[in-house]
Amino acid sequence: MYDMLIANLRKHINLTAEDIDTITSRLNLKKVKRKHYLVAPQEYCRYEHFVIKGCFRSYFVDDRGDEHITYFAVEDYWITDLQSFISGEPATLYVEALEDSEVLQLSKNHLEELFQLVPQLNNYFRILYQKSIVSMNTRVLNAISSTADEHYLQFLKRYPFLEQRVPQYMIASYLGVTPEFLSKIRSRVLSRRS
Amino acid sequence: MYDMLIANLRKHINLTAEDIDTITSRLNLKKVKRKHYLVAPQEYCRYEHFVIKGCFRSYFVDDRGDEHITYFAVEDYWITDLQSFISGEPATLYVEALEDSEVLQLSKNHLEELFQLVPQLNNYFRILYQKSIVSMNTRVLNAISSTADEHYLQFLKRYPFLEQRVPQYMIASYLGVTPEFLSKIRSRVLSRRS
Repeated sequence: MYDMLIANLRKHINLTAEDIDTITSRLNLKKVKRKHYLVAPQEYCRYEHFVIKGCFRSYFVDDRGDEHITYFAVEDYWITDLQSFISGEPATLYVEALEDSEVLQLSKNHLEELFQLVPQLNNYFRILYQKSIVSMNTRVLNAISSTADEHYLQFLKRYPFLEQRVPQYMIASYLGVTPEFLSKIRSRVLSRRS
Repeated sequence: MYDMLIANLRKHINLTAEDIDTITSRLNLKKVKRKHYLVAPQEYCRYEHFVIKGCFRSYFVDDRGDEHITYFAVEDYWITDLQSFISGEPATLYVEALEDSEVLQLSKNHLEELFQLVPQLNNYFRILYQKSIVSMNTRVLNAISSTADEHYLQFLKRYPFLEQRVPQYMIASYLGVTPEFLSKIRSRVLSRRS
């Protein structure tokens, strides 16, 4: 059950067999049924989660009750309310399983311990956070300067195969458009491709 | 000229005198006149910059020619187009000096070298990137769910003293409101405080 995570870590850092033991001994397997939550607003988010099976979305609900999807995670992705996890403040996001899923949980205390015991993990998480920053920036800039068609193409590039796994209205929410408008974008983009 | 940076590093990590030498030998002092640029769109942004004197803003210009300020940096702050710096793609941001300023420049090659020579820097930049993620998230969530008055109060909290150093229209741009509306917010907030 640790193979996917170990391969992911080893893409970025060198680890001995002992390092691997140190890391895996601090992980918990958690099974999450479809439509159940890993994180919810007002709770304290004390875990990072590495997806080994299934699919999640994170979203928040604005003052008018509208949902905004901020992120999708499938196998080989980390997901959490990073802001709450880092700052220790209550969560603002929901993290919901879209399929019956399994994650490896890593608590903040264990992670802090691991930064001491396996210092290369600082390097790994630095790279992971770099990637988060780049993709958050890209989304903010896209929201302002790209066309809806470009957003959709970038979504397909960032999350290949996800379109078959989640409902269209969620993809529309992630892109910040109505489902009707997404359907127009899709037919436009597909007709240009074929 | 390295004192501020060394104090900043030592807030987060332990460094020997030798580590300090290793780091400072890879830094360049760069003086930037008011209204001059550290970074501009289409250029490759190959440096991180630590401000030791002065004040900068980063902003982008959308398709309609409107400026949007994404970040301010004063003494003891890092500034760059992080996305371009990390990804190696051309910059999308301008980084402009708002006063005659001085920065310590660290090239990407030197930083990569330093991650090997002084591994604690992985820890430092991991923490720095964590903070960026938290503040980017806060800005995105605020943009959707807080009132304009709250935005302004959060700006004052995040950047104390900056109000006296930059023109009001730039603060308005950072907050995503018109200068006229900012002036209404200010009088509302100040009257409530007094």
